[in-house]
Amino acid sequence: MSLSFQHLTSTKQLSRADTDALLETAEKMEKVENSGGDESLKGKVLACLFYEPSTRTRLSFETAMHRLGGSVITADGIQFSSLYKGETIEDTITVINQYADIIAMRHPDAGSADKAASVSEVPFINAGDGPGQHPTQALLDLYTIQKERGTIDGISITMVGDLRYGRTVHSLCYLLGLYNNVKFTFVAPAELTMPEKVTSYLQEKGLEFTETDELEDGLDSDVIYITRVQKERFADQSEYERLKLKYVLTADHLKGKKGTVMHPLPRVGEIDTLVDALPTAAYFRQAKNGVYLRMALLSMLLNNS
Amino acid sequence: MSLSFQHLTSTKQLSRADTDALLETAEKMEKVENSGGDESLKGKVLACLFYEPSTRTRLSFETAMHRLGGSVITADGIQFSSLYKGETIEDTITVINQYADIIAMRHPDAGSADKAASVSEVPFINAGDGPGQHPTQALLDLYTIQKERGTIDGISITMVGDLRYGRTVHSLCYLLGLYNNVKFTFVAPAELTMPEKVTSYLQEKGLEFTETDELEDGLDSDVIYITRVQKERFADQSEYERLKLKYVLTADHLKGKKGTVMHPLPRVGEIDTLVDALPTAAYFRQAKNGVYLRMALLSMLLNNS
Amino acid sequence: MSLSFQHLTSTKQLSRADTDALLETAEKMEKVENSGGDESLKGKVLACLFYEPSTRTRLSFETAMHRLGGSVITADGIQFSSLYKGETIEDTITVINQYADIIAMRHPDAGSADKAASVSEVPFINAGDGPGQHPTQALLDLYTIQKERGTIDGISITMVGDLRYGRTVHSLCYLLGLYNNVKFTFVAPAELTMPEKVTSYLQEKGLEFTETDELEDGLDSDVIYITRVQKERFADQSEYERLKLKYVLTADHLKGKKGTVMHPLPRVGEIDTLVDALPTAAYFRQAKNGVYLRMALLSMLLNNS
Repeated sequence: MSLSFQHLTSTKQLSRADTDALLETAEKMEKVENSGGDESLKGKVLACLFYEPSTRTRLSFETAMHRLGGSVITADGIQFSSLYKGETIEDTITVINQYADIIAMRHPDAGSADKAASVSEVPFINAGDGPGQHPTQALLDLYTIQKERGTIDGISITMVGDLRYGRTVHSLCYLLGLYNNVKFTFVAPAELTMPEKVTSYLQEKGLEFTETDELEDGLDSDVIYITRVQKERFADQSEYERLKLKYVLTADHLKGKKGTVMHPLPRVGEIDTLVDALPTAAYFRQAKNGVYLRMALLSMLLNNS
Repeated sequence: MSLSFQHLTSTKQLSRADTDALLETAEKMEKVENSGGDESLKGKVLACLFYEPSTRTRLSFETAMHRLGGSVITADGIQFSSLYKGETIEDTITVINQYADIIAMRHPDAGSADKAASVSEVPFINAGDGPGQHPTQALLDLYTIQKERGTIDGISITMVGDLRYGRTVHSLCYLLGLYNNVKFTFVAPAELTMPEKVTSYLQEKGLEFTETDELEDGLDSDVIYITRVQKERFADQSEYERLKLKYVLTADHLKGKKGTVMHPLPRVGEIDTLVDALPTAAYFRQAKNGVYLRMALLSMLLNNS
Repeated sequence: MSLSFQHLTSTKQLSRADTDALLETAEKMEKVENSGGDESLKGKVLACLFYEPSTRTRLSFETAMHRLGGSVITADGIQFSSLYKGETIEDTITVINQYADIIAMRHPDAGSADKAASVSEVPFINAGDGPGQHPTQALLDLYTIQKERGTIDGISITMVGDLRYGRTVHSLCYLLGLYNNVKFTFVAPAELTMPEKVTSYLQEKGLEFTETDELEDGLDSDVIYITRVQKERFADQSEYERLKLKYVLTADHLKGKKGTVMHPLPRVGEIDTLVDALPTAAYFRQAKNGVYLRMALLSMLLNNS
């Protein structure tokens, strides 16, 4: 199996054949990990360049590389960004190409991943570029849906919270557009509804969606995907206070429901901790799936090239 | 050999059987390290989560893991603490459980290690939680005493410096309480004497101690354990100035003495550098013993589980 | 082959036999790297102690160690320097000796590398000490000249930019002093000419040099080595503005020229990006050569000891 690309910068470049191949490989990687890892990437070096901190994503990539026997070099945080002050991202990536066999980069500026990929001769993975794309998050979300529900075609999914600015829900919508008969329920306050670029994409793909601001309208879906609502998005703070409580998912909400609960994490109150004990609470398994999915991606990109 | 616990958060949970097993394993690890390490933890991943910097402790853990063929993922310092702002420590640990096989955590808040251990499914090691516990330091101190003196039962030990706030001396006292006939001399200014919780513990165990503010009173012990006296602990700065000089151990103090000199490091003047050349100066060997002890702990916890 | 030293703190300690041995080993390492690395340093631990950030140098050392199967422990940036506040560099190095098999250190203070080496029992490499020395940079420059030109004896080299404060050009001059008939052209504004300590060294060695402030005077050399001119070096800012443009190397400058273009990187405008496509543009290959050279150095120092 191989992928249609050398660099992964956006979910939009993924075909259904790509996601099929990645999800199938992730499943194999789960077996590899459970049996203690392997050494298939021994001798290979992953460079993690994190211009802004995202420890969770970085540690997930690094774990994935270690589980396959590879090595990691890391630059993150303040010292990193101060170092390269004045150097173009293209030069930085060209230098890192002299060191590493594959690069994962996090950067605060949208478009930085495309700049980096344009000069990279080794496989390049966008690990989030500001308000732009974060394709490995969307892929691990997709993998989680398949594992938890047994299928992606035909599922119903509710997305809750900040649908306007939430990078993860946008990317996931694009990926779900590759599947058949997926039904969407978007739960958001008026200030934070799904942007037109996403809804028109779904319409193009012939996929149904409904919009509401009531969490209760979305609790019967196969998947309930919650994201954080941020205080600073609201002009009217009393409106925020009202919604803050309205969009907290509790065990009471889920009584008798069978939907899989997902969240990109970290959560800061959107899901009551009593939910954690429910078998449908999949958000920590989702984090684990990130390791499998990234093992698959690292492995396929390094064997492609 | 196995340990009575899955998580190590406090010296208080250690039995004599535990310390015996750990010290015996540390001795084996010394041979492993001296012959170039082994691969007994190959495929295993240690997560070092350092919410506050403690480079020395972190590098000691990381070295221990590498010497046994394992891999390490690390989050430390500013970028780390800013990332998880707002996330509970329990959630962070649950996520890291999805990545790593074992966790070592340093945190500024007392009690954070217990919170972390309460949710961790993989072995968890407290690498220092604020004014609370730092059990691996106490264990490496214990191992150093055994190596330098050939025994722990029956030794006399002088502890010097800030005995009130010094986490390491408290933890070491708790561990020495597992042994027989240990005699303590506590050398501290009135402001910084050993707290009652420690002295009453020693009384319970039937162990002798004497208290003094004269360094000279403690120079004949088998072990002289020095710690730093911090300026900010004193209301009266002239008192600090007087003591600062009084508690500097010099080569003159040690003329004709056979006691082993220990210090948790870093030192900032408490031990004159001329002492370094004495065969009884054990503080750098003590740092090395930290690697052996941590190799033993990582190995035993990962093989227990 | 072996080296005449255990610690590398300065280019001045290198003999011609040393540079010959290092360059020959670097060439072998290039083959090792190209065939996927080896495990000749398996079980060995490199400590990277970076008191000031230099991500490029650090990642190059770490990559070199990984390519040879070794492990790395790293301390860098703010958390590191704050930790060791108050501890002497000699104590820090003595502690790190308890952990690692070899040390690479970057420090802002000139002379810190000598202090460190004076107490280290494991091989110590200066990875740059402030305005002082950065010997591995000079060695990788030397290796690049040999690879690009086939020889070092007899070459002509132009050095451009801040020759007064530029650590890399000074170190490279010292190394080139070990070779025969090297001819130098120094292109710099009056404020930033090569210091007397360097020119008198070259005279001692019987090597020719000419000085100019016109870039055009140096374009026919076998090697054109550009460095950055920093604004803050000029009392007269209009002078800086004039020179800033004058010392930007463009593809036009290089029409019909065969000289190898080198730069220690990062560049911030001194070389127009259109130059990158020329076959003589060697600065990114130069970065790659840093990995080979550091593989050679790590390997030889660890096998010496």
